[in-house]
Amino acid sequence: MTEQRGLLDHIKQPADLRRLSVDDLRALSDEIRELIKETVSSGGGHLSSNLGVVELSIALHRVFDFASDRLLWDVGHQAYVHKILTGRSGDFKTNRQAGGISGFPDPQESQYDVAKVGHSSTAISTAVGVAEAQKRLGNKRKTVVVIGDGALTGGMAYEGLINAGDLQSDLLVVLNDNGNFIDAPVGAMHQYLDKIRTGKFYNRMRNRLKKMFRNSPAAKGTGLSRLAEHVDQATHRLFAPSFIFEDLGFRYFGPVDGHDVQAVESALANLSELNRPVILHVLTKKGGGWEPSQQDPLTFHGPKGFDTETGSFHAKKSGGKTYSQIFSNTLTRLAEQDQRIIAITAAMPSGTGLLSFAQRFPDRMYDVGICEQHSFGFAEGLAICDLRPVLAHYSTFAQRGFDQFFQEFVVQRHLGVVLTLDRAGLVGQDGETHQGVYDIAWTRCMPGVVLMAPRDAETLEAMLEWAIKQKDTCADEAAAAYVIRYPKEIVPKHHWGLEKSKPIELGSSEQLRQGDGKLLIINYGALMSRVWDAIELLGDYGKHVSVIDARFAKPIDPAIVSAIDAHEQTVTVEDHSIHGGFGSCVMEAMAAHGVVAPIHVLGVDDHLIAHASRDEQISDQGLDIDSLAKQFMGFLGLDDDKIIQFSKTS
Amino acid sequence: MTEQRGLLDHIKQPADLRRLSVDDLRALSDEIRELIKETVSSGGGHLSSNLGVVELSIALHRVFDFASDRLLWDVGHQAYVHKILTGRSGDFKTNRQAGGISGFPDPQESQYDVAKVGHSSTAISTAVGVAEAQKRLGNKRKTVVVIGDGALTGGMAYEGLINAGDLQSDLLVVLNDNGNFIDAPVGAMHQYLDKIRTGKFYNRMRNRLKKMFRNSPAAKGTGLSRLAEHVDQATHRLFAPSFIFEDLGFRYFGPVDGHDVQAVESALANLSELNRPVILHVLTKKGGGWEPSQQDPLTFHGPKGFDTETGSFHAKKSGGKTYSQIFSNTLTRLAEQDQRIIAITAAMPSGTGLLSFAQRFPDRMYDVGICEQHSFGFAEGLAICDLRPVLAHYSTFAQRGFDQFFQEFVVQRHLGVVLTLDRAGLVGQDGETHQGVYDIAWTRCMPGVVLMAPRDAETLEAMLEWAIKQKDTCADEAAAAYVIRYPKEIVPKHHWGLEKSKPIELGSSEQLRQGDGKLLIINYGALMSRVWDAIELLGDYGKHVSVIDARFAKPIDPAIVSAIDAHEQTVTVEDHSIHGGFGSCVMEAMAAHGVVAPIHVLGVDDHLIAHASRDEQISDQGLDIDSLAKQFMGFLGLDDDKIIQFSKTS
Repeated sequence: MTEQRGLLDHIKQPADLRRLSVDDLRALSDEIRELIKETVSSGGGHLSSNLGVVELSIALHRVFDFASDRLLWDVGHQAYVHKILTGRSGDFKTNRQAGGISGFPDPQESQYDVAKVGHSSTAISTAVGVAEAQKRLGNKRKTVVVIGDGALTGGMAYEGLINAGDLQSDLLVVLNDNGNFIDAPVGAMHQYLDKIRTGKFYNRMRNRLKKMFRNSPAAKGTGLSRLAEHVDQATHRLFAPSFIFEDLGFRYFGPVDGHDVQAVESALANLSELNRPVILHVLTKKGGGWEPSQQDPLTFHGPKGFDTETGSFHAKKSGGKTYSQIFSNTLTRLAEQDQRIIAITAAMPSGTGLLSFAQRFPDRMYDVGICEQHSFGFAEGLAICDLRPVLAHYSTFAQRGFDQFFQEFVVQRHLGVVLTLDRAGLVGQDGETHQGVYDIAWTRCMPGVVLMAPRDAETLEAMLEWAIKQKDTCADEAAAAYVIRYPKEIVPKHHWGLEKSKPIELGSSEQLRQGDGKLLIINYGALMSRVWDAIELLGDYGKHVSVIDARFAKPIDPAIVSAIDAHEQTVTVEDHSIHGGFGSCVMEAMAAHGVVAPIHVLGVDDHLIAHASRDEQISDQGLDIDSLAKQFMGFLGLDDDKIIQFSKTS
Repeated sequence: MTEQRGLLDHIKQPADLRRLSVDDLRALSDEIRELIKETVSSGGGHLSSNLGVVELSIALHRVFDFASDRLLWDVGHQAYVHKILTGRSGDFKTNRQAGGISGFPDPQESQYDVAKVGHSSTAISTAVGVAEAQKRLGNKRKTVVVIGDGALTGGMAYEGLINAGDLQSDLLVVLNDNGNFIDAPVGAMHQYLDKIRTGKFYNRMRNRLKKMFRNSPAAKGTGLSRLAEHVDQATHRLFAPSFIFEDLGFRYFGPVDGHDVQAVESALANLSELNRPVILHVLTKKGGGWEPSQQDPLTFHGPKGFDTETGSFHAKKSGGKTYSQIFSNTLTRLAEQDQRIIAITAAMPSGTGLLSFAQRFPDRMYDVGICEQHSFGFAEGLAICDLRPVLAHYSTFAQRGFDQFFQEFVVQRHLGVVLTLDRAGLVGQDGETHQGVYDIAWTRCMPGVVLMAPRDAETLEAMLEWAIKQKDTCADEAAAAYVIRYPKEIVPKHHWGLEKSKPIELGSSEQLRQGDGKLLIINYGALMSRVWDAIELLGDYGKHVSVIDARFAKPIDPAIVSAIDAHEQTVTVEDHSIHGGFGSCVMEAMAAHGVVAPIHVLGVDDHLIAHASRDEQISDQGLDIDSLAKQFMGFLGLDDDKIIQFSKTS
C-alpha cells in the first residue's frame, strides 16, 4: 500500500501529472481510488460519482492549466479527484470533517476551485458568466464545465445552454454521462442520452449512407445540387442524435470512453482550440474501477463503514428510526386507506425514505428527476384533479421551487397539498450549501400556508395524517399547502410526561410543562428533546420553567401569546435561522396582540454553516443540551455558582 | 360598430362557436379585436399577445370542449380571447379593475380556467399533473397547453417537457410561436425556432430525398435492408428540425398558420386522437390583425390610452420620473465612469428601465430571456471575474431565482453583486401573481446580504452608487449581494425638511424628525412620502412624532433600537408582507438588544392581493395618507373628536 501511494505523493500540483507515463497514470488512478474509498468508508461522502471520474479528472488537468483556465464542477459532489490532484491529497482524509476540507468545491480552499456549489444544474450558467468576462477582459482562458447527465435534467442547465448558444461563449461542456442519476435513471433526457450511448448501429449506418450519397445518380442531378452540398452535414445530423445540443448552438462531439485517459485527453486537446460552445460527451461508469460500487452504484452513492477491498459493510449499531423512515411508513399506511395519495420526489427516493413507499406502491410514486420546479407544478396538477399529492423534498433543494411554491400552490388557494421538508435544520457534513435553515422564512411569508414541525415520531405521524386529510375535512377552507419540516436525525423516545398527546388541530400548540411563571420555553420542532433534557439538568430549578411545543409556526396559537403574557421571560428555540424564523413568528403575534414582554430567540445565527457533524453544528450554535441548560439558567438570573454546579452534573 | 358586436353577443358559451360559418368567424375575430383594443386602451393590459391568438383561441374552443377537456395558458397574459369566448365578454370591460375580472386566468372566475397564473413557463408542468390525474382517474379528458416561444426558454418548461416525454402523458402542447418575446427575441431557442419557421427549403428537400431513397439502387442492397426500414423516419428527422421535441419524447407537427382558423382546427382535430405527448407548432403574429400593433408589437405589448383606429397615443400628462427611470439613468451615469459595470435583465429591458442604458451601452446590457435562474449564475460568473454586474428584476419574477440567490450569491460570500428589485411592494392591476411583497422575507433570511429601499430619487441614486462601489471599497469584506427594492411609482419630490441627506453608510438610518418621545415612526422604503404627508395632516399633534427612515432592513441600525427604547410607542411602516418583513427585522433587533417596548407593524396583511390600482391596494391595506394619519392618532391615544376634526382637514 505504501508503495502504491508513492505516485500521489509526487503530485503537488496538476502540472506534475504531465510527467507521468501511461502506466504511471494507471497506477495513480488506483492510488486515488484507494484514498477515496478509505476516506469515504471512515468519514462518509460521495463514492460512486468520484470513482467514475478518476481518469476524466486526470485528463482534464493534463490538458488544461486550471490555475488560469477555469474548471467548474456542476453539483460538485464529484470533485474529490480534482481536489486530490490540486494540492489537497494530504488533507483529503479530513474531507467533510469539522475544520477539514469541504466535500464540495470551495475557492477558499484552492485557487483551482471557481465557485462553491452543492446544488445541481448551475455550473453552465456560472461558466457562461466566466467565459463572457474573459472575453470582455481580453483573456485567453478556457472555461470548462463538467456536468452529469442527471444534472442536465434541471431546467437551469437548459437556460445556461440556451444563453451560451446565443452568446456563442468560448465554453467547453464535458457531459459526464454515467447513465445514472443519484438513485435511478429517470426522464426523457436519460432515454435520449441512452440512444446516443447505444449508437453504434447509427454510426455504422451513417458511414454507409455517406457512401451511398456519393454514388447516387440522383445526387448528381442538377435539381439536387444544393442537396449535395448538405450531404455531410445531413448525414451527421441524421445519425448522430446530438440535435438538442446542436440546435441550441453547440457543437457536439463524442461519445468518448471516459475511462480511457488518452482518448479523453486527445478529445479535450482537439476541442480546446474551438473557441465556441462545445459539448464533449464522455461515457463513464458510476463507481467505475471498483467492482462492488460499479455493480451497485446506488448503495455506494454515499456509503460509510465498508471494507475497501470487498465492499461488505461493517455491522451498524441500530440507533432507531429516522424521521424519514417514520414519514415513509406513515405515508404508506395512509396510502393503504386512500388511493388518491400520490408521492412525488425529485431524484431523492432513498434520501426522503420514499423507496419503501415505492416498493409497496410502485405506480403511486413519481420521481421527476432533479426538477424541483416541475415537481411543484406537477403536484398542483394532481391536486387540481382532486388527488392527494405529497411532495417530499430536502429543505435546501426545495428552495429551487420557491416561485412555484408561490404560484403553483399559494396562488391556487385551497389545494391542500402536503409538502414535507426533510433535512430541515442543520444537516451536518454536507455543509454550507445543504443547510435547511431558511425554510420557515421562505414558506411563512406567503398567505394560506400552514407550517408544522414534529418533535418525535408520534407527532410526525399525527401531523402527516392530519395534513393529508385537511382537503377532505375543510374542502374550500383548506390551506394551499401544509408544510412539515423535520431533520436528518433519529427520532427521540421521550414521553414528555404525557399519557397521550393532544390531537393535532389547526394552529394548536401543546403545553408540556407548567412552571411558576418565571420562564416560558417555546419550542418549534426537533430540538424539543434537547430542550427537555436541558430542563432535566436544571434539577430543582426546573420548577421555574414552563414548556410549550408550538407544533405550528403558522398560524401561531393565541394560547402562546397569552402564555408569554403570563410569564416573566420567554425563550423560543428552533433549528432554523433566527432571521425570519419561528422566533420572529412569535414576536409578530405578540405585536399583533399588543403583548409587550421580554423574549429571547435561540436558533441558528446569521452565518453560513460549514461542514461538521450535525451535533457539532448544534453545539456551535449553543443549541445542545448543555448550552441550552446554561442559557435557561442565565434567563432565570441564577448565579455563576449554580451554573457551575449544574454543569458538573451534566 | 353595434352591428359588428352582434355575433359576440350570441357567444354565451364556447359551444356557440361551432354554429358559425367561416365568414362569421372572421367577423367575430374583428369584433373580439375591437373589444380588446377598446378595453386595453382605457384600462391597460396586454394587447399584442392577445391580438395574436384570436383565431387560435377560436379554433381551440371549436375543436375541444374545455368544460371537460382542460386548457392551460402559460403565463396567462394571452387569455383575453379565451375569457371573452367563455362567458366573460360582458364583463371584459372590467378587465384588471378593482372588483372586475382578472387579467390572467382564474378558476374563481370560470370553470374554463384551470389554474391561476401570471409567471412564465409553468403550464406544462401543471398540465402533466392534470394529464396524469386524468389517466389515473380513467377520464378521457384531453389536456392542452398553449405556450409562447418566449416562455419556452424558461427552464421549468423544459423540465415539464422532459417529464411529459418520460410519462408519455396524453398532452397536446400548442407552441404559439410569434417569433417574439415581451421585448426582443433572444436566445438560442429563438434562433432554433426561426430555423423551423423558414423551413420551406427543408420541406422541399425532404420530399426530394424521400424520392431518391425509394429509387436508389444502393437502398435495395441486402446490407442496407435495415436502413431502408428507417428511411421514412430518417428523412423526417433529417429535414424537419424538430428534434428537441422529438428527442424528448414528443411528436412534433407543424408549423401551421395560426391566423387560419380552419388550418388550426384541422390540425387540432387530427392531433386530438393521439393520446401521447404532441407539440403543434403554430405561427402567429404578435399584435396580429391590427396594423399598428403588428408593426410594433413591443409598444403595444402593454399600452394604454391609444386611438383604437390609428394606434396613435393620446397625450400623457407628465407625472415625473419613475424609480425605474432613476435607476437606469443613475446606472448609465455610473457606467460612464466604470467600464466593469454590466447590466443584466431577464426579458424586462423596458420594464426595468434598462432600455435607455442599453441605448448608451448596447454591449454592456445582457437580456438572458425569461431565465431568472440563469441570470443569477451568469451574474455570479461575471462577478467572480471582478466585473460589476447589476441584476435588475421585478421583485415577483426574481423569486424564480431564489435558490440561485442562495447558492450563486450568498454562498460565494463577498461577491458584491447588486440586485435591484423593481415592482417591489403592491403592483396594481397585474394582481395576485405579480405582487412584490415577499422579497424582504426571502432575501433577509440568508447571511451576508445587505437590504436597502430608497424613499425618493436622491436616495435611490445614492444607494445604487454606494452599493456598486462596495466591492472596491470593502474588497473581501463586501456583502455577497446588495439588494435595493423600489416600487412601480413616480418618485416623490419631498425635501423631508433636510438641507442635505446623510450619506449612505452600511446600515445607517436617517432621522428626519424629532418629536417629544411619544411616538416613533420607522419607515422602510417608498411609503415614506405617504408617512410624511400623514404627519402633516396631524397638524400640531405632529410634535409628538419622531421619524426615522431606516434605509436598510439588513443590517438594522443600532440607533433604531436605541430610539425605540427612548420612545413610548413605535410603529414600523413598509410596503411588504408583515410576515417576515421589515417590522420583523426591527423586532428581532430589539430582542437581540434586550429592548422591551410596544411596537406596531404596518404593512401588507396575510392575504393574496387582487388586481386594482396600486393606490387602491395601498388604501385597502390602510397605508394611504389618510389611514396612516388616523392610525398615528390612534397610537397617540388621541380621542375620536380629534380624529374627526383631523379627518376633516384632509
